[in-house]
Amino acid sequence: MKTSRYGHPDPVDRTRFPVDEWAWTETSHSTEDLGLTETVFAVANGYLGMRGNVEEGRDVHSHGTYINGFHETWQIRHAEEAFGFAQTGQTIVNVPDVKTIKLYVDDEPLMLAMADLEHYERRLDFRDGVLRRSLIWVTPSGKRVRIESQRMVSFEQRHLAVMTFEVTLLDVDAPVAISSQILNRQDGEGEYHLASAAAGEGMDPRKARKLTERVLEPQTHWSSERRTILSYRCANSGMTLAVAVDHEIATESDFEELSHAEADLGKKIYRIKGKVGQPIRISKVAAYHTSRGVPVRELVDRARRTLDRVRDDGVDECFAEQRRWLDRFWSDADVRVDTHPAIQQAIRWNLFQLAQATGRVEQSGVAAKGVSGSGYEGHYFWDTETYVLPFLSYTSPRVARGALRFRYLMLPAARRRAYDLSQLGALYPWRTINGEEASAYYAAGTAQYHINADIAFALCKYVQATGDDDFMLREGIDILVLTARLWSDLGFWLGQGEDRRFHLHGVTGPDEYTTVVNNNLFTNVMASDNLRQAARWARRLAESYPEGYARMCRRLDLVDDEVAEWSECAERMYFPYDEGLGIHPQDQHFLEREVWDLAATPDDKWPLLLHYHPLVIYRFQVLKQADVVAALFLQGQMFTMEQKRADFEYYDPITTGDSTLSSVVQSIVAAEVGHQRLAIGYFYAGLYVDLADLHGNASDGVHVASAGGVWNSLVYGFGGMRDHNGTLTFDPRLPAHWPSLEFGLRVRGHRISVELRCDRIEFTLGEVDAEAARVEGTSIDVIVRGERVTVRPGAPTVVALDGQGPVIERQLGSVPLVGNKDEHEMLHTAGVPVARPHRRKRGEAAS
Amino acid sequence: MKTSRYGHPDPVDRTRFPVDEWAWTETSHSTEDLGLTETVFAVANGYLGMRGNVEEGRDVHSHGTYINGFHETWQIRHAEEAFGFAQTGQTIVNVPDVKTIKLYVDDEPLMLAMADLEHYERRLDFRDGVLRRSLIWVTPSGKRVRIESQRMVSFEQRHLAVMTFEVTLLDVDAPVAISSQILNRQDGEGEYHLASAAAGEGMDPRKARKLTERVLEPQTHWSSERRTILSYRCANSGMTLAVAVDHEIATESDFEELSHAEADLGKKIYRIKGKVGQPIRISKVAAYHTSRGVPVRELVDRARRTLDRVRDDGVDECFAEQRRWLDRFWSDADVRVDTHPAIQQAIRWNLFQLAQATGRVEQSGVAAKGVSGSGYEGHYFWDTETYVLPFLSYTSPRVARGALRFRYLMLPAARRRAYDLSQLGALYPWRTINGEEASAYYAAGTAQYHINADIAFALCKYVQATGDDDFMLREGIDILVLTARLWSDLGFWLGQGEDRRFHLHGVTGPDEYTTVVNNNLFTNVMASDNLRQAARWARRLAESYPEGYARMCRRLDLVDDEVAEWSECAERMYFPYDEGLGIHPQDQHFLEREVWDLAATPDDKWPLLLHYHPLVIYRFQVLKQADVVAALFLQGQMFTMEQKRADFEYYDPITTGDSTLSSVVQSIVAAEVGHQRLAIGYFYAGLYVDLADLHGNASDGVHVASAGGVWNSLVYGFGGMRDHNGTLTFDPRLPAHWPSLEFGLRVRGHRISVELRCDRIEFTLGEVDAEAARVEGTSIDVIVRGERVTVRPGAPTVVALDGQGPVIERQLGSVPLVGNKDEHEMLHTAGVPVARPHRRKRGEAAS
Repeated sequence: MKTSRYGHPDPVDRTRFPVDEWAWTETSHSTEDLGLTETVFAVANGYLGMRGNVEEGRDVHSHGTYINGFHETWQIRHAEEAFGFAQTGQTIVNVPDVKTIKLYVDDEPLMLAMADLEHYERRLDFRDGVLRRSLIWVTPSGKRVRIESQRMVSFEQRHLAVMTFEVTLLDVDAPVAISSQILNRQDGEGEYHLASAAAGEGMDPRKARKLTERVLEPQTHWSSERRTILSYRCANSGMTLAVAVDHEIATESDFEELSHAEADLGKKIYRIKGKVGQPIRISKVAAYHTSRGVPVRELVDRARRTLDRVRDDGVDECFAEQRRWLDRFWSDADVRVDTHPAIQQAIRWNLFQLAQATGRVEQSGVAAKGVSGSGYEGHYFWDTETYVLPFLSYTSPRVARGALRFRYLMLPAARRRAYDLSQLGALYPWRTINGEEASAYYAAGTAQYHINADIAFALCKYVQATGDDDFMLREGIDILVLTARLWSDLGFWLGQGEDRRFHLHGVTGPDEYTTVVNNNLFTNVMASDNLRQAARWARRLAESYPEGYARMCRRLDLVDDEVAEWSECAERMYFPYDEGLGIHPQDQHFLEREVWDLAATPDDKWPLLLHYHPLVIYRFQVLKQADVVAALFLQGQMFTMEQKRADFEYYDPITTGDSTLSSVVQSIVAAEVGHQRLAIGYFYAGLYVDLADLHGNASDGVHVASAGGVWNSLVYGFGGMRDHNGTLTFDPRLPAHWPSLEFGLRVRGHRISVELRCDRIEFTLGEVDAEAARVEGTSIDVIVRGERVTVRPGAPTVVALDGQGPVIERQLGSVPLVGNKDEHEMLHTAGVPVARPHRRKRGEAAS
Repeated sequence: MKTSRYGHPDPVDRTRFPVDEWAWTETSHSTEDLGLTETVFAVANGYLGMRGNVEEGRDVHSHGTYINGFHETWQIRHAEEAFGFAQTGQTIVNVPDVKTIKLYVDDEPLMLAMADLEHYERRLDFRDGVLRRSLIWVTPSGKRVRIESQRMVSFEQRHLAVMTFEVTLLDVDAPVAISSQILNRQDGEGEYHLASAAAGEGMDPRKARKLTERVLEPQTHWSSERRTILSYRCANSGMTLAVAVDHEIATESDFEELSHAEADLGKKIYRIKGKVGQPIRISKVAAYHTSRGVPVRELVDRARRTLDRVRDDGVDECFAEQRRWLDRFWSDADVRVDTHPAIQQAIRWNLFQLAQATGRVEQSGVAAKGVSGSGYEGHYFWDTETYVLPFLSYTSPRVARGALRFRYLMLPAARRRAYDLSQLGALYPWRTINGEEASAYYAAGTAQYHINADIAFALCKYVQATGDDDFMLREGIDILVLTARLWSDLGFWLGQGEDRRFHLHGVTGPDEYTTVVNNNLFTNVMASDNLRQAARWARRLAESYPEGYARMCRRLDLVDDEVAEWSECAERMYFPYDEGLGIHPQDQHFLEREVWDLAATPDDKWPLLLHYHPLVIYRFQVLKQADVVAALFLQGQMFTMEQKRADFEYYDPITTGDSTLSSVVQSIVAAEVGHQRLAIGYFYAGLYVDLADLHGNASDGVHVASAGGVWNSLVYGFGGMRDHNGTLTFDPRLPAHWPSLEFGLRVRGHRISVELRCDRIEFTLGEVDAEAARVEGTSIDVIVRGERVTVRPGAPTVVALDGQGPVIERQLGSVPLVGNKDEHEMLHTAGVPVARPHRRKRGEAAS
């Protein structure tokens, strides 16, 4: 794992996965990395997701079909209980699987692992959103059979999945049987991972939990010749589900068909007298409907309606809709890098994953793995707000708004949680599906109070990018007020006069290798912004919308004094700073720790969290992920360039990157402070997290935050965009071996295309929404390296980049995946003693 | 609970529990406080313990019979797992119950809760160690029946329990039936508490865990007319158990008897044609034998031998032996306070509990509840070494040696644990039965590294008190070397030249309301002593026993440099000190926290741990128990009187005493620094912890550490004894309303009686062991208020206490149970802002 992160810049086996700018393609099947390919070839729309399991059902790492937010609850059993510990466990449920379509020729089953395949290709097309597989199978008796299949989860109709399966005998006639299933797996076969096994991989806290009790209780089952419908209810959470499937066959050959349904199984079997050259085409259309507790008969009706519509319009229309939806997506979201097709492909795969994780999320959040796997149990974290919402705000504002509304709807639970933690206001849960805190390890969970500020930050960024004041007035302001109220209640004042400062104690920052500290810089910086924005918006709404503001004040018991208090807390927030080193300590006492000697840490001890007791890790200066450095990016306006460089150079050599949230942030700040090789290296480390399985756990699902971070690295990192003060600024740092970088932004109803080249940056104003034009005017101002530029509709606005040139220099040869050893060594603060927290003296064996 | 701690100085209901200097007596039965009385009337010998359940079996809080160290193991399931977390849960097993003897007259059962009782008395006699109950029952049909029963667990034969049950019809003849049982309760009826229930009492981490699987697997059952034998094996731990019971009846009346045995039940039933005035006397003798895995047939043989011996000698001899054993105990252990019979009674109850918890422990440790209940799951903590071993070392050195040998035998596991925590040497588990760490919450468990130093401290105190160099040479030195090695590996150096200091980071001190801190004063002080003693003993053994020393060096890979390093670490250990306040901060950053406003904390929020999330508690200056103040006592030679007073006065007002380990230590230091009312108040708070159920959880078992602390308070606190430098010193502070305080000490083979009066202290040298006389001489030196006094055999050595008088002044009226509010307010450091961590502004309800 660690070694692979220092490998070749293109870490993908290109003989098996050839470069294709618009697709991820596999040219041979392997049972060695099924977990990885199931994730990489998953199809999803943010609501419904299906892992890339092979059609035949066998050869599996984890069968998986997930519906965002569809979860079971269970009581968390703490090995040692304490007041306020999270009580309600929540785990995304693996819903009945409709992917399986088994093929028999001469009654011999097609089993991919053993099949003699004359041809194999699997291709996930980013433009039309369809996973296609094409085989020529030579049966044990030597008959050649072509099998073409397609699978898609519809972006246009979020409850819908469409599959086609086409078999053509190429040499001789033969009896063909096709058995298509709807299977509710209750036996734990492959789909859950055991979180709490004794040791080894099973101990990985990042995996999901095995639910040993029956989760989905069958409610009804029904089948006709065409249609099968099963319905279920979650035993504890009471959530309900209906899944309905239509089958249709098109063939010139004679056939008979059988239908069958029981509680956990629906089956459709075709027996065909196959004729050479006559295709047998099965279409299988599935609709999933879920709810928090609507009776299943109602869901069954909804599922029928979905299927009836497809029956009337035909599946080809589904494929056409899918293409049209994605055309719109790409016109907003595509980022183009000329002459580097492999990088272009990887970028598009990541952007496509963002579409698959968020496209039709609507009333839910965006889980850490989207709906591509069960990793992190389908929970929502700060990932969404910090890594994904910037992308959504600038490319799909409607989706961003939905995700923020979801946090608004979660406020009552967050208020109860604050109460449990003896605080006023609202405290968002560190990880949750239903709004209740589900983090069973508070030191790296509940203690991450910064999630409050991360949500407020994303909210303000969204409103700033879109100009959606209406959302702020009606719902967003409640989030700002209640989060700010928590901060002002949590902190306390120390010092007198000019030295009086507001302190926040006993919190954990993003870096989980240090927990429960005082004045974590990231937290204090973000909380300060939270307080400032709350005060700013309160005053602004009071002025612009006095009636709505007055209603809110009554609703939340807000008085002017409290708003004034927020401003004071924000302005006088304590930020730890070390004069000697000229850096910001990660927390008030961070520099008192010994420095972990990462260079001397054996390869088999990575990631640290799986090989050292937390008490050991917490005792050292060592980072799981960017913490101060994340603050430098998110609140860059609060730091000077010198501070940023000093902080980056101090923290980078002690950052393990054991979290995939780290490298994309390190890339952005490295680019800003001029560490070119590190910037591009960390970018690759984010770009290939899943495609090259750099962290060894891609099998658990897509790292959605990292995918969002790829967009951030491109736009904020190399594009040099910032949006701290309401106006977009650009200080580009194009990698020297990239001739250009192009991306689009939606800004307050305008659509701007940005094309960056080494000597210039061009802005083109596209379509302008009429309402936006009325409010915002038909032009938009940006700032390029300190100079204000007005972008107007029509011809591109071209800004020459002067002699200072891009910060990223041109002479880049082969770049290592993460950083550069020489550069790291150079960075290592001279004279700081380092220690290895593993046995280093007197080699006594444990007796 | 809290309010009761501020109640009357004698918080016991004397109408129900009359004063008796040599017994605890109950004059009426109540079902309201069965948990409490089951604990207070428990009989035990350190190996075997039986709760004070009523003979009839009904009316129960928790049935309980426990055998020290007899435990089941189970895999700890952490809600969120991490490397190095404790894996092996261990829980003391409630073994088959032999206490139940049911009585029927006219086929009407005696049920205490509903019975019409003309007379009731229950009495636990501290001098003969027998629990006796005497009833006159008026049956529903109006017949008067006298029932006298006895129960004892033998100190002389540790596997043995003896019961007698005598029934006499007082008015008319009647059929009498007596049903005596051996019952293995597997249904969880009453005997386990659920640790992890959703909320409320069930959440209390101090209770034991419910084992839901069958624990004791039946192996054999057998019965004859006289004898019944059942045997079992623990499902996971593989420990084995045999319990054998003999019954005998003595009566003039006609009777028939029935015997029956099955897997979980043995029954002996007598049907007697009862005659007025003819006593029916049943004796029931039980033997328990256990092992780590010896086949049960072997245990059955052992149990037969135990019973055969009693059969031959008669039960009266068992009662006589018991009295002789206790006579010896009291001659060593008694502490006498003249003219205060209620206090005397309570002191003796506590000392008797020490006998019951430790008397026949032998190859096991001393659990937090002894063998009187399932609280803390039968685990061994630092309690033994810190609170109980001083008593044992000075009154029962052989028992002390056994407890220390137990820690020696645990060294291999402690070495493995150090390895798991990335350290050299040995790290003792925070809580354990079998030597493996069983603490599932590391912040208040494994992080308490100080347990290493506590064990080393107790070891050195034992060797110093007894002169048992042989034990040190053969086994003790391994403990010293491996614990010192851990400290020198755990810490690190900071600073240059004279300021160079040895720091210990990321540990938790005794006070569990602050966890995982840097340079906890208690830990650093104790570790410093551990390192110093290890170096001192290494050098001493090298000089006195060069061969044995050389063997040890080879065994433990010890070189002279390492010994030198220990001395340096000890001498240059960092001790946090605040010049401004003139106090020692509990840890390096303790004073940066807000001060918890205990005065404003609502009554229903005590103890804090059951009402506030750990994150909230940890954020404040508030103590569960004495921490710095414990260091002031244990390592008093390292502090000046001014420091002690300043530290005590700073910490006392912010110490909740939510732990029962606190008040006895606070009493000792209050006495030393001159806070008379607090000293006596905290003494009472310790004295009545169980007798008045001051912490509301006496039902879980006896607070053995507090019982040890009562002896410490008397001898170290009021007696003013210290033993820091190898010579006993005395600076007495007799409470003014106590005319005298007398106690005995065994010191290096001598027995010294100490009698303290307000104007003098007398020392009398008793029996002198011949070997001791040869080694140590026939006299012993002590120091009284700085003056050396030689105590010789014969007449008492009397030392007048001069005009400075006892520190405790005479004018004490009614003293509150804990401290004194005025005194507390006076102590409260002026100007320190305090904060309440409960909702204090804008009374919004959780929505």
